[in-house]
Amino acid sequence: MATIMTASDRKTFKLVIEYDGSQFHGWQRQKSDRTVQETIETALAVMTREAITLLGSGRTDAGVHALGQTASFITESHLDADAFFNGLNSLLPGDAVIRSCERMPDDFHARFAVKSKRYRYHILNTAIAPAIGRQFVWHIRKPLDVAAMQTAAEGLIGTHDFKAFEGTGSPRQHTVREVTESFLNDAGSGNLTYDIEANGFLRFMVRNIVGTLVEVGLGKIPPENITAILQSRDRSQAGATAPPQGLFLMEVNY
Amino acid sequence: MATIMTASDRKTFKLVIEYDGSQFHGWQRQKSDRTVQETIETALAVMTREAITLLGSGRTDAGVHALGQTASFITESHLDADAFFNGLNSLLPGDAVIRSCERMPDDFHARFAVKSKRYRYHILNTAIAPAIGRQFVWHIRKPLDVAAMQTAAEGLIGTHDFKAFEGTGSPRQHTVREVTESFLNDAGSGNLTYDIEANGFLRFMVRNIVGTLVEVGLGKIPPENITAILQSRDRSQAGATAPPQGLFLMEVNY
Repeated sequence: MATIMTASDRKTFKLVIEYDGSQFHGWQRQKSDRTVQETIETALAVMTREAITLLGSGRTDAGVHALGQTASFITESHLDADAFFNGLNSLLPGDAVIRSCERMPDDFHARFAVKSKRYRYHILNTAIAPAIGRQFVWHIRKPLDVAAMQTAAEGLIGTHDFKAFEGTGSPRQHTVREVTESFLNDAGSGNLTYDIEANGFLRFMVRNIVGTLVEVGLGKIPPENITAILQSRDRSQAGATAPPQGLFLMEVNY
Repeated sequence: MATIMTASDRKTFKLVIEYDGSQFHGWQRQKSDRTVQETIETALAVMTREAITLLGSGRTDAGVHALGQTASFITESHLDADAFFNGLNSLLPGDAVIRSCERMPDDFHARFAVKSKRYRYHILNTAIAPAIGRQFVWHIRKPLDVAAMQTAAEGLIGTHDFKAFEGTGSPRQHTVREVTESFLNDAGSGNLTYDIEANGFLRFMVRNIVGTLVEVGLGKIPPENITAILQSRDRSQAGATAPPQGLFLMEVNY
């Protein structure tokens, strides 16, 4: 007698994923390039013999890293969360690691259920470029005015239309987001980190903000102009896009 | 009339070099593999049109990193230290950086003049392997007894025969070295660093010491046995060789 699958045979799991984005062409499955989604989906297929679609909390671009990307998937496999955690970590290459696996209610969706995300961007402001860790920072040789950058960063907190910081070619209908954290930390020796948390992000939004903050730090944009840039809703008013390798998706909250 | 070169046309320079060893087959020039020495010598040849030999403070093995490797070279070029500093940094690939270039007395030799060297070894003692920064640590999953490791580390300070920690296949006639620092630091969250400074190192000495300290941390070797291991002068009494990627040559003192 054939086994009849019912709703109760299907289980939803959530993964928290760390990856070094250096050798990935971003999160999202592509035709030929190596991506995080495809790498994990392949491992899931090996474990379950099912063609599982992994739903990420959102894309990350090529070269961007994650310490706390999240994703969900649905499976009819008998495997439990521990088995997926251990099995995936033994199958995955070293540059992608599962930090946790958890069974979720059936209706959980890693993208639709997101309440907020937090990103961190690493800047190294030193006269000499680094060799060690160059894959994880934006090195800037000229001295940055950290206080001015911090003033500008604070000006982004609150609910604003971030259209001016949206990458071209990927417009969203709604461009208002609520930023609950926007803070530049100076850890000394030129090590700057920028933390931003919001209920959602537009494409390239963090990198466009960081590029703008750096232009503030270089004296090209006065820090008080940040409000006028937001109000302009004009991408050309903001700074250039910061490179991907300094960016880390730190946390996705539900 | 031909130009006659005299001793005064020859200048000696010292370089301080940072490199990410991940993509180098160590320091020393080899027939076909990419090495740090060969990479910098090639750049020097481009700048000077001379076949310059770069004298390192010593070799580092494949996969080992450096924040403060040193090397000297002799040239008849008219270029000064600033020109070498800037020129090399514009010619070198991203994983090797010149941190300083300095003119030295003619008789300076980067290897013979070494007074001491300092190495640091990074261990990450966490349940889950890292994806970010995995090229720069030895990840150890099982909990380590840091206090026991620290006791053993302290037992290495002083003038001892380090024959038991010498890699096989590369014996030195004299195996007595003076260790002036041997300290394990616990920076929290499983981040351990081991610092060792000595007037000289045998081949694989740091990695063999770290491998032994980790066996102490895992309870396989009692910390008080470190003295007996030194006295045995027997490689088989010490622990296994730690992997290269956690090791950094931090500083060479003259």
